[in-house]
Amino acid sequence: MERIYLDNAATTKIDPQVLEAMLPYLANLYGNASSTHEEGRKARLAVETARQKTAQLLGAHHREIYFTSGGTESNNIALRSAVRDLGVTHIITSKLEHHAVLNTIMDLQKREKIVVSYVVLKVDGSIDLNDLERLVKHSDGKLMVSLMHANNEIGNILDIDEVADICHTFGAIFHSDTVQTVGHYYFDLKRTKVDLLSASSHKFHGPKGTGIIYASTGLGIKSITTGGSQENGIRAGTENVAGIVGFAKALELATERMVADRTHISKLKNQLINELAKLDVKINGAKGDKSLYTVVNAAFPSDRQTETLLLDLDIAGIAASGGSACSAGKGGSHVIGAIGKEKYNNIRFSFSRFNTLEEINAVGKVLQQYFDKLYAL
Amino acid sequence: MERIYLDNAATTKIDPQVLEAMLPYLANLYGNASSTHEEGRKARLAVETARQKTAQLLGAHHREIYFTSGGTESNNIALRSAVRDLGVTHIITSKLEHHAVLNTIMDLQKREKIVVSYVVLKVDGSIDLNDLERLVKHSDGKLMVSLMHANNEIGNILDIDEVADICHTFGAIFHSDTVQTVGHYYFDLKRTKVDLLSASSHKFHGPKGTGIIYASTGLGIKSITTGGSQENGIRAGTENVAGIVGFAKALELATERMVADRTHISKLKNQLINELAKLDVKINGAKGDKSLYTVVNAAFPSDRQTETLLLDLDIAGIAASGGSACSAGKGGSHVIGAIGKEKYNNIRFSFSRFNTLEEINAVGKVLQQYFDKLYAL
Repeated sequence: MERIYLDNAATTKIDPQVLEAMLPYLANLYGNASSTHEEGRKARLAVETARQKTAQLLGAHHREIYFTSGGTESNNIALRSAVRDLGVTHIITSKLEHHAVLNTIMDLQKREKIVVSYVVLKVDGSIDLNDLERLVKHSDGKLMVSLMHANNEIGNILDIDEVADICHTFGAIFHSDTVQTVGHYYFDLKRTKVDLLSASSHKFHGPKGTGIIYASTGLGIKSITTGGSQENGIRAGTENVAGIVGFAKALELATERMVADRTHISKLKNQLINELAKLDVKINGAKGDKSLYTVVNAAFPSDRQTETLLLDLDIAGIAASGGSACSAGKGGSHVIGAIGKEKYNNIRFSFSRFNTLEEINAVGKVLQQYFDKLYAL
Repeated sequence: MERIYLDNAATTKIDPQVLEAMLPYLANLYGNASSTHEEGRKARLAVETARQKTAQLLGAHHREIYFTSGGTESNNIALRSAVRDLGVTHIITSKLEHHAVLNTIMDLQKREKIVVSYVVLKVDGSIDLNDLERLVKHSDGKLMVSLMHANNEIGNILDIDEVADICHTFGAIFHSDTVQTVGHYYFDLKRTKVDLLSASSHKFHGPKGTGIIYASTGLGIKSITTGGSQENGIRAGTENVAGIVGFAKALELATERMVADRTHISKLKNQLINELAKLDVKINGAKGDKSLYTVVNAAFPSDRQTETLLLDLDIAGIAASGGSACSAGKGGSHVIGAIGKEKYNNIRFSFSRFNTLEEINAVGKVLQQYFDKLYAL
């Protein structure tokens, strides 16, 4: 059997069209985008065309898009510069954020003595917006809210327009880790009043090692690493031209295919939920449109360790995950812990346009056999 | 005429063999190196094999090599973590360092109130080691010396073994920006007692967007960005597997070919120096083995602006540079300023294994014509 890759929230396969767009910049168009000669100008043109394209696809201005080495760096720039350069002294966040956000906020709390508040979560792990509003309203000091658009483990989607409205009513800066949604949902950043946004191309069939930070005009964030004046001073270092070209191409392709891909992938998700329902396996997190169409987080009974179940699936040819790849094998998931589901064996299945209904049916069969065997023992 | 690319100190063409090594990781081997399933394990194997190979080629232990997004990030981690985590309060450096080092040290001076000393330079821009020893000897507080192995603009090479000896005699930490020398000179880090070293693969026919930091065992530097625990906690963020594989392959190839490439490139350099001598153009920086075999920095008479001369060369099909790409078009070079040569029009020509003697002869002709025209006016 061909392997079935259902860990697309961890990383995705580069689309062949994306690789094709990158290849000239890995071969003959190798100039340094900061060089003034023809080779440099060609590289610069590629970088700026990618920036224009990315901006246009997100409804942003090209001067609001900065290329980085990935989502982690983007989140670090957003949070660290907000505290250092924008005078933020209080951050409201949630315990479900990715470690790139959560560990950064905790580091800022320790080193910079900022105040951190964690918003109350509902039973399904979604953000209690009433509590958020209360926290924002009663904050003193310069406030930033950092809440992810969609959770990478359980798939819960936040209404970032509503959060942006709350933030802007009370003068708070709003940062959203959109690593799981850029390339999967439409953005119109002229309309959605998020101030800072982070994304990474390897989550939507682009290359690893390239991300963006979106910073709304006039916000005033600055680089956290120093060196050359690349990326308008926001991110020093020779531009990864091929990666940047790949980011833009992947986002273009994802946007063009979004409706069709969403329809296809939603079917896969529903089918897997049906298969899991047959086995009486519950789904963690929010339901329907409040959950990523790309993610199912299933709460398996605790008869066996999650690691064993994952290993069994892996041996059966199915790649799934116990949580985020970043914390794989590092003990329990902080997200699962925060929603009180640690007594289950939770497995994340995450889909892409390259998955098929046949694959999901095959997974259903493998799970059925697994359960049959488990309870026959 | 085919274009003649003589800006290899800014960036180099990826070697086709390097790209070939990278391609599987841009196509089918797309796993996240932190995932525990088969796809993840294959990515992890690639990353760890690259680390082993890189370490072995540099005479280091594999646990001393950390992959980063490039030289700028590596320099930032080295310097910032030294101040934050190792208690460094005094840094000795030179005014000839790359901006990734110089701007970082100035930022640390401003924000962290460290003391900064600049070592005295000799007339040719080389480091006065007596002054360095005097500075190191009389330092109070925890000291770091940060001096680049070879200058990216004028090519001067520092005897890092001697500097390491001085540092170790007096208990100072030694960081060296080796971006222009890794892949061009042999390293044996078991013997050379440098504590921290930064390198970037796009300077030796590897991909942009990947670098390393070497940190000697037990030094205790930590990540400056927070997130996942990748790279043993030194550098958070999903590993750029293809880039990492490319780094190691480029270093392997460069090491295998080093003697032959050096012989070939040295001939090109000597030939260009001869051509320039015919025009009575002087060479900036140190001479012979005290200068990179890959770089010639020529002091043209001040009859015209450097920008015009560079543009004329570019139009004639020759890519050269006024200094580092990172500061191209941003006013004069700080290196040239520091060695008092700003009254000349200084052009850097930098070579690679892909250049030929025919190209250098063609450059000689173009320069001759340029001079003929200039003085005929």
